[in-house]
Amino acid sequence: MKLWGGRFNKKTSELVDDFNASISFDSRLYKQDIRGSIAHARMLALQGIITPEEASEIEKGLISIEKDLDAGRLQFSVTAEDVHMNIETFLIERIGETGKKLHTARSRNDQVALDIRLYLRSEIQAIKILLFELLSTLHGLAGQHVDTIMPGYTHLQKAQPLTLAHHLLAYLEMLRRDWERLNDAERRMDFMPLGSGALAGSGFPINRDCVRDDLGFGNLTRNSLDGVSDRDFALEFMSFGAILMMHLSRLSEEIILWASDEFRFIELDDAFSTGSSIMPQKKNPDIAELVRGKTGRVYGNLMSLLTTMKGLPLAYNKDMQEDKEPLFDTVDTVKRSLAIYSPMLQSTRFNVERMYQAAARGFTNATDLADYLVKQGLPFREAHSISGKIVSWCLERGKSLEEMTLPEFQAFTPVIDETVYPEIDLRACVEKRSLFGGPAPSTVKKALDEAAEFLFRIDPHKE
Amino acid sequence: MKLWGGRFNKKTSELVDDFNASISFDSRLYKQDIRGSIAHARMLALQGIITPEEASEIEKGLISIEKDLDAGRLQFSVTAEDVHMNIETFLIERIGETGKKLHTARSRNDQVALDIRLYLRSEIQAIKILLFELLSTLHGLAGQHVDTIMPGYTHLQKAQPLTLAHHLLAYLEMLRRDWERLNDAERRMDFMPLGSGALAGSGFPINRDCVRDDLGFGNLTRNSLDGVSDRDFALEFMSFGAILMMHLSRLSEEIILWASDEFRFIELDDAFSTGSSIMPQKKNPDIAELVRGKTGRVYGNLMSLLTTMKGLPLAYNKDMQEDKEPLFDTVDTVKRSLAIYSPMLQSTRFNVERMYQAAARGFTNATDLADYLVKQGLPFREAHSISGKIVSWCLERGKSLEEMTLPEFQAFTPVIDETVYPEIDLRACVEKRSLFGGPAPSTVKKALDEAAEFLFRIDPHKE
Amino acid sequence: MKLWGGRFNKKTSELVDDFNASISFDSRLYKQDIRGSIAHARMLALQGIITPEEASEIEKGLISIEKDLDAGRLQFSVTAEDVHMNIETFLIERIGETGKKLHTARSRNDQVALDIRLYLRSEIQAIKILLFELLSTLHGLAGQHVDTIMPGYTHLQKAQPLTLAHHLLAYLEMLRRDWERLNDAERRMDFMPLGSGALAGSGFPINRDCVRDDLGFGNLTRNSLDGVSDRDFALEFMSFGAILMMHLSRLSEEIILWASDEFRFIELDDAFSTGSSIMPQKKNPDIAELVRGKTGRVYGNLMSLLTTMKGLPLAYNKDMQEDKEPLFDTVDTVKRSLAIYSPMLQSTRFNVERMYQAAARGFTNATDLADYLVKQGLPFREAHSISGKIVSWCLERGKSLEEMTLPEFQAFTPVIDETVYPEIDLRACVEKRSLFGGPAPSTVKKALDEAAEFLFRIDPHKE
Amino acid sequence: MKLWGGRFNKKTSELVDDFNASISFDSRLYKQDIRGSIAHARMLALQGIITPEEASEIEKGLISIEKDLDAGRLQFSVTAEDVHMNIETFLIERIGETGKKLHTARSRNDQVALDIRLYLRSEIQAIKILLFELLSTLHGLAGQHVDTIMPGYTHLQKAQPLTLAHHLLAYLEMLRRDWERLNDAERRMDFMPLGSGALAGSGFPINRDCVRDDLGFGNLTRNSLDGVSDRDFALEFMSFGAILMMHLSRLSEEIILWASDEFRFIELDDAFSTGSSIMPQKKNPDIAELVRGKTGRVYGNLMSLLTTMKGLPLAYNKDMQEDKEPLFDTVDTVKRSLAIYSPMLQSTRFNVERMYQAAARGFTNATDLADYLVKQGLPFREAHSISGKIVSWCLERGKSLEEMTLPEFQAFTPVIDETVYPEIDLRACVEKRSLFGGPAPSTVKKALDEAAEFLFRIDPHKE
Repeated sequence: MKLWGGRFNKKTSELVDDFNASISFDSRLYKQDIRGSIAHARMLALQGIITPEEASEIEKGLISIEKDLDAGRLQFSVTAEDVHMNIETFLIERIGETGKKLHTARSRNDQVALDIRLYLRSEIQAIKILLFELLSTLHGLAGQHVDTIMPGYTHLQKAQPLTLAHHLLAYLEMLRRDWERLNDAERRMDFMPLGSGALAGSGFPINRDCVRDDLGFGNLTRNSLDGVSDRDFALEFMSFGAILMMHLSRLSEEIILWASDEFRFIELDDAFSTGSSIMPQKKNPDIAELVRGKTGRVYGNLMSLLTTMKGLPLAYNKDMQEDKEPLFDTVDTVKRSLAIYSPMLQSTRFNVERMYQAAARGFTNATDLADYLVKQGLPFREAHSISGKIVSWCLERGKSLEEMTLPEFQAFTPVIDETVYPEIDLRACVEKRSLFGGPAPSTVKKALDEAAEFLFRIDPHKE
Repeated sequence: MKLWGGRFNKKTSELVDDFNASISFDSRLYKQDIRGSIAHARMLALQGIITPEEASEIEKGLISIEKDLDAGRLQFSVTAEDVHMNIETFLIERIGETGKKLHTARSRNDQVALDIRLYLRSEIQAIKILLFELLSTLHGLAGQHVDTIMPGYTHLQKAQPLTLAHHLLAYLEMLRRDWERLNDAERRMDFMPLGSGALAGSGFPINRDCVRDDLGFGNLTRNSLDGVSDRDFALEFMSFGAILMMHLSRLSEEIILWASDEFRFIELDDAFSTGSSIMPQKKNPDIAELVRGKTGRVYGNLMSLLTTMKGLPLAYNKDMQEDKEPLFDTVDTVKRSLAIYSPMLQSTRFNVERMYQAAARGFTNATDLADYLVKQGLPFREAHSISGKIVSWCLERGKSLEEMTLPEFQAFTPVIDETVYPEIDLRACVEKRSLFGGPAPSTVKKALDEAAEFLFRIDPHKE
Repeated sequence: MKLWGGRFNKKTSELVDDFNASISFDSRLYKQDIRGSIAHARMLALQGIITPEEASEIEKGLISIEKDLDAGRLQFSVTAEDVHMNIETFLIERIGETGKKLHTARSRNDQVALDIRLYLRSEIQAIKILLFELLSTLHGLAGQHVDTIMPGYTHLQKAQPLTLAHHLLAYLEMLRRDWERLNDAERRMDFMPLGSGALAGSGFPINRDCVRDDLGFGNLTRNSLDGVSDRDFALEFMSFGAILMMHLSRLSEEIILWASDEFRFIELDDAFSTGSSIMPQKKNPDIAELVRGKTGRVYGNLMSLLTTMKGLPLAYNKDMQEDKEPLFDTVDTVKRSLAIYSPMLQSTRFNVERMYQAAARGFTNATDLADYLVKQGLPFREAHSISGKIVSWCLERGKSLEEMTLPEFQAFTPVIDETVYPEIDLRACVEKRSLFGGPAPSTVKKALDEAAEFLFRIDPHKE
Repeated sequence: MKLWGGRFNKKTSELVDDFNASISFDSRLYKQDIRGSIAHARMLALQGIITPEEASEIEKGLISIEKDLDAGRLQFSVTAEDVHMNIETFLIERIGETGKKLHTARSRNDQVALDIRLYLRSEIQAIKILLFELLSTLHGLAGQHVDTIMPGYTHLQKAQPLTLAHHLLAYLEMLRRDWERLNDAERRMDFMPLGSGALAGSGFPINRDCVRDDLGFGNLTRNSLDGVSDRDFALEFMSFGAILMMHLSRLSEEIILWASDEFRFIELDDAFSTGSSIMPQKKNPDIAELVRGKTGRVYGNLMSLLTTMKGLPLAYNKDMQEDKEPLFDTVDTVKRSLAIYSPMLQSTRFNVERMYQAAARGFTNATDLADYLVKQGLPFREAHSISGKIVSWCLERGKSLEEMTLPEFQAFTPVIDETVYPEIDLRACVEKRSLFGGPAPSTVKKALDEAAEFLFRIDPHKE
């Protein structure tokens, strides 16, 4: 018979047990569930609702259950529905009547709200460490490539010369915003929900402050209805995850492009590539492809929970049991993607020479030619138009701008003189873009310093 | 060393093995993989690419592996990446050199394309049976409630009187379209992809027709590139699933409403309800809530794979490994939701008396009053306006239309006479709506007959 | 000929003009575009890139264009593609050669990045005001209903008695988190992108600090590649919007339920309801239904931009032009939904008597009976079980708990005495739940005070 | 006052009018609305519900309204809410009392259900024509490139040699499935809903068959509740659209890659490219980028309507008004994307020489080497491993397989003799893959013939 079965005349159908039960996935929360129950029991004793001896017996029982679960010595049962009921059942089996007192002044509704927050809080810490490592990896690589010239692209067409450092720092900026978003989400979920009861709090003289402090939360949820029916923290985390994966999908797209025979900007380490079951020559950028592909599941998870929560009346509805799997999957996917990215990047060989040659093709200095014409006195729109005509002329003849003679230039406009050549030199094109946020090595060095300060500030390893 | 490791100088990192490996979820396909391999081996022998003895040895080896897997006597390994490589590895362990010949003229790309189609084909059969059962359940219930009057709603406001049979048949219509969509999807995926190779077919003199017939497909995929990079069948199935779950979410919403204390149109069986861990009186419609909630995951799965497939160049990309989990989850969710719905509905008690009383409140016959005025010669817009004023007058006095006296009626318009009363009688209101598609019992009986023919036509149990 | 046409030998096809052009929707940004261009021109003059006279001529020209656009006296053209090119073309038509200098040291890529941020920044202000109004409305209504008893629900089954104030404050909590999320998003987008150029900044000696100050931004974007290819701010805003609409969809669901004939907890004002074209008695909660329905489009917009951004290599790609319509639509939908919600709620009549009666049905005090048994010394699980049996007994006899005699109670357990009656009194059940976050009037009053402080803190009307 | 205002004591607030009104977007349906009303009026006369003279007056009035709307001489009003009420109001203004009779035996609920079906039916015809054109374009291009060798890719790594024709035919296969899906969707929506009334049909003796025939439908909707609350046809169409756009996004990705300086497989026509406002040399594949980007909005639209429909009780709810904008946007986006794709492809220049050279790099014949070894008697797994080692050896020395000497080959395995060279010749590699579905020119020619038959079968232009 179920723990809640008093009012019922029939047993639930087995089909129903299977369908309703969440134990197959919420078993993951057993440590959080036990931790929360211990805090609850201690508080019940403090408030005189149970005796200190009972609390101690409960705590010991729970710790022994945790150990047995850690060791794989206990089997969860589908009949007991969920992790909460399973553990309560184990407890009653172990310590008898006293175990039946644990659920005083508590409901599964506030209990699960607590468990997920405890879980997510600790996973956010883990993700912060992984994000820090990827940020540091990007920072380290950028530091090695301050002078590595490469073509910048828009529309996947060569646009202007850049440095690899500058390119990598663009991703550092993205991930830095992700870190900030995660931090905000963490702060916003730092509210302890226990004591919300099923929806209306509790009539027992419980002490929520004491539980909050025991569990290390900063605040209490302010409304019992909201406390049990709020899943914003999961949605906000999943929004963070979706944007983060979008960033990683962009980097992955570039890694896949760069590893292609056409680009050959990088060579992935053998340890981070895989082969083909049929084609012996293949060396595939599977990691980057998988991360790009997994973006789909993280988007899908967000959409899943948003859909589930739409239009639910207050307070708890069983629909909300569907919050866990998409959340868990997002946590796992984000962690695994971040974890593999750092060593993959670190082991990648950048083909510096090939990048330079690629930048030297495709008229990446045409904007500098136009800018030069402006400096020689033409309005920008005219300068742009004349430069366009010069490029078109070169294309027909298979020439680059550097290869044009002065008379050839002057046939387009007399304002060009020999000062044009240093202006369209590839390295000079990069170096003169030294404004804040620009790709010039001098600027990028300052950006690296500023980023180092940020990294120091958030370093999870410094105590 | 990996089966594809010839070209590589280093082992893949363990992290990479974990990240890349699909064995944790594609192990589900082992029966399909073995079935496809047997057909492939037979064909290789038929074509003289391997000997009949080798084919026979391979087939025996594969069958013994299947038996051991069925019995849980074999463990898959993450190092072998996926179900295909795991089984090939087992085979080589068991039968030696001959096992190494199985993969001749085949790639994992066409192999997995085959496996998923075999899997989905068989799951579609299972779903058709479950859909048939739910359709039959609705049909059976409707047959019992041809004369059960209930209020029809729009905007959750009482609108016009209906019968419960008519209401249930609306869901039968929805699910019938779902069945048709599933059938179309099944027909469209009846194309055998083996022989597409990695992307370019095979240079061996293989015989695709023979494999197609062995595996019971109707057609061959017509282009090798498309054969390995097509996941339309999964997306079309998941679109079917999304629309089906949307339908079930609507029915679930109604069940939840009807089971509330405010409606009390139904009482769920104890066996299909659950209680509360804290509130002893609760009897919750968990099944309906869960199905409504699970709509989210089926939508999310569709969005997940759509996102993954977006913008992938031809042919196979590793991203596509992400097709399986959302597909499997959609299959499972659809099956479980359908499976539980039929017995839940069958065990539900409909509170016929309460439904009738609800229909008698809320002026559900006001449209019939307006229609009556039209028949007495007023234009519809005027008839509608006068009826509105009469309702407003009644609301202030707490009267129903039936309770008005003739003089009271005539104060609004002299065209009303005593013939109004039979026109606004609840049962008469329903009975006169006997047009095709209408709620009149006479019409509904015909609709039931037509539906019975449809059910007979699709009955999966008739051989 | 296009402003960028120098390199091209053919005109674009008309079909292409139509397909590429964004003017049909980005025209909405014309004020932001002009504002940004003025700041850019001023800076160019300050840096000596153009003369002060030229800057002044440009500024006057732009202001006259803005006036003419405000007055509807200028027509945008599809040939000029987008709002930027249209305004630049107008400018050149009006002030000639000088107009061609405006685009010096600037690209459409950083220009549009600026325009959207300026736009969204101002819309966020507008949304904050609307959110504040809805928060204040909820607060005001809650203040009126501190003592209004109503049933609280879980699973749409009656659970425990609450007050309406407490229920409304749950929504205040949700919207408060929305406000915080919006505030974080606003802070995170306070970075000025101009100077990022097409992707690599500019070789001209421009002064980004000066533009930042002129436009009232707090910071500069730190990387030019990121500056032009970042759309996080739009995605973060749309995530905010999705969660907000989810909250409103829940409130809307409740309003629709409460307005039904079955609940009758509220009566919507005629001014905020609509009728039926055919059924004269209907009074529909259209506003709440539409807001619930519009949740779909806000979710869809988020999914739309997430999909578009997936897998794009750096830096700008034309795909990103698709950012605007979903963003605009989310802004509009959120604003309109919030704007209509406050007056709708304010004009709603709450049926206090009906709510009380509803709370008195459905054994909402059964938990208090169980709690009473615990206080009398039973372990909670036994107390829960006995209470369940008592409820079951009552259900069969059509009795409420209050109507049971003491001997009837004692037949279940001797620990019950006459002290049970005050414990299961409806009002007492609410009042004893006075813990922090609970529904007791005394607690709710404190919650109202705390909320008032929050509202004062964020009040956009106080200067 | 509203046409439905009889029961109301107050006017709706202006805010409400704006929020509720759908006229800003459903005005697009005016022709369908008028067409449906004419059919309805004719039927009313036929059944004797109105007189033939009245029907004729109504029809003339409606036709004059249509002409004035076509000519832009009539302004819709927000107060009249939607296209149905606007047109009915115009009609009453024009023909007086008789106009008030049009809405007899009809509700806006079945009227709008009809209008959308009429609209979508005609748009599906338009899309079929555009799909046919794109299919024909692909077919035509493939016909020109049966012998054009190019590298096939998996994981964006060179895999095996193909022909361009075979590659293009892969897209033909995808679009062919799209055509079939669209055709199924069209068939499934060929049900006429008028007569469903608000939800319960009508008490008037109407004749639905007659309206069905007048409007050219094949069937009648079978249940009035379903007839007004079904939006499956929109969802099924939007699922079709999502999969189609996914296909186009893949082709677009390839066009963008192929147009890059790194690939240079194609040159887009100037008329189908655009330039940069700042970089004079740029020639951007905007069309392909936009189509890829617009995939997001079509996915978003699907998600939007799926979300809106989730959990709605029967029958019509105002939420469903949100069906139109995502449907319209999907129709428009699909049409515009298809319309521009055919001329863009037709005007593209394929760089046949460059494609061949690309296929000659990257060991695309390594699989043929392995296959050769199998034919020489090695088991496939060994052949694969040895080929991998040979590739690795070549990579270190910068050699291709063709450049190896026989002794070099034989150092790896003695089974290789001079017959290896013809087996690894690029063209031979393609030609030997002549199995059904393979890339060999001989096979591709047959595939082209089969596709031509399909195109002939579906040709919308043939008589």
